Amino acid sequence: MTTTPEGHPVTPLPRTGIGVDVHAWAPEGDDRPLWLGCLRWPGERGIEGHSDGDVAAHAACNALLSAAGLGDLGSVFGTDRPEMAGASGAQMLAHVADLLARGGFQIGNVAVQVVARRPRVGARRAEMEAAMSSALGGAPVSVSAATTDGLGFVGRVEGLAGIATALVAPR
Amino acid sequence: MTTTPEGHPVTPLPRTGIGVDVHAWAPEGDDRPLWLGCLRWPGERGIEGHSDGDVAAHAACNALLSAAGLGDLGSVFGTDRPEMAGASGAQMLAHVADLLARGGFQIGNVAVQVVARRPRVGARRAEMEAAMSSALGGAPVSVSAATTDGLGFVGRVEGLAGIATALVAPR
Amino acid sequence: MTTTPEGHPVTPLPRTGIGVDVHAWAPEGDDRPLWLGCLRWPGERGIEGHSDGDVAAHAACNALLSAAGLGDLGSVFGTDRPEMAGASGAQMLAHVADLLARGGFQIGNVAVQVVARRPRVGARRAEMEAAMSSALGGAPVSVSAATTDGLGFVGRVEGLAGIATALVAPR
Repeated sequence: MTTTPEGHPVTPLPRTGIGVDVHAWAPEGDDRPLWLGCLRWPGERGIEGHSDGDVAAHAACNALLSAAGLGDLGSVFGTDRPEMAGASGAQMLAHVADLLARGGFQIGNVAVQVVARRPRVGARRAEMEAAMSSALGGAPVSVSAATTDGLGFVGRVEGLAGIATALVAPR
Repeated sequence: MTTTPEGHPVTPLPRTGIGVDVHAWAPEGDDRPLWLGCLRWPGERGIEGHSDGDVAAHAACNALLSAAGLGDLGSVFGTDRPEMAGASGAQMLAHVADLLARGGFQIGNVAVQVVARRPRVGARRAEMEAAMSSALGGAPVSVSAATTDGLGFVGRVEGLAGIATALVAPR
Repeated sequence: MTTTPEGHPVTPLPRTGIGVDVHAWAPEGDDRPLWLGCLRWPGERGIEGHSDGDVAAHAACNALLSAAGLGDLGSVFGTDRPEMAGASGAQMLAHVADLLARGGFQIGNVAVQVVARRPRVGARRAEMEAAMSSALGGAPVSVSAATTDGLGFVGRVEGLAGIATALVAPR
């Protein structure tokens, strides 16, 4: 531990990170499920593509990797790692938490905002926060939501986005 | 206060948060005023909708609530709280500061970027920062601005956005 | 240095900031080079406009200025400062680092995410991080990347964006 000349411990500065993730909605009538914040949302339209499309979990992973300087979703879960191809948001968060621990970082907190017309995040906020926090081994996770007043690709219901920040500290 | 085995105080990690807010411009010719950063902007086009549409104040509220894990604008000022329906940005910031204080959090700082073609934020930056800081009981607030090079809904002058981050610490 | 009644040093809270920067792609066939993360990208389409259009460097500058409360790109490198008109991303980062040092701030870290369809950031991540860090006098810089699943102005290949956060601390 670093100390002052008088022997008092000096806390090293924590580090902040940022992460955005965007996914397109699946076509109407498609029956794939929606995953968001490590929860399944019955009756909601799902996400296009081969991942579970959990923008909250993906944005959180990006923010954590960004804070620790350990790359991003593409480098950690990219096409050259077929064993992670079908990973769930919870599995990805757990893997990222493990990478940070091995890299010598403690997770301070993660804050995610879902930018989407649907679903109603507020109805399951505490459940999302608990599921994501559990996947991260107990680190505090906050989940919030916003719409875009009908504007942009979110307003046109083409897709939804997650935006996250995280604070980590060298152990 | 947490201390090391030697009795030195250990500073708990602060927490970071993020908040985005988007509003659509009112139709041209509409005479409602623009509110931004807790200031009235005479001669500028106003915002559609029932709130004062202050994207800087709203993004800052979202970032603070996000950092403290206390929900978001929708849960704090939602339709089930009619007494907050017509709240100004300054009133909302003051209410959020009060929620954080009751929740045991100290506000470190709030940083807001306005993403819009107009108004010219730089001309009144210090005034906006002072007004928002005052609403938060003196916490440091920084205000910056960017355009989008003519792209997206901001570039098409359909609306404007605020994006904010905040740092809070357990008392 | 602030101390507790027992004489232990109290670390002042660090400050967080946020910065977004957006640029439009130059017309196809235009031969201007792409600059991103203080690197030249041979063979990639360049950016429209009079600056080098380095969204990673510009977003990082905005986040640092935002964290320190020292304005934004417009106020620091605006049209009233012709000597900075043709500044490169590296020159801008170096100037911002100097402003922060003069303002009494230490840079903790900067985290930038490039939101774009191209180029492939992962192929040169370490090189970008080193170039940006060097321009900042050695402060840690992390670079990550995301696409938008084909949505919005990024998906339509109209432009690209950088989004950054930074942590600074009073010396």
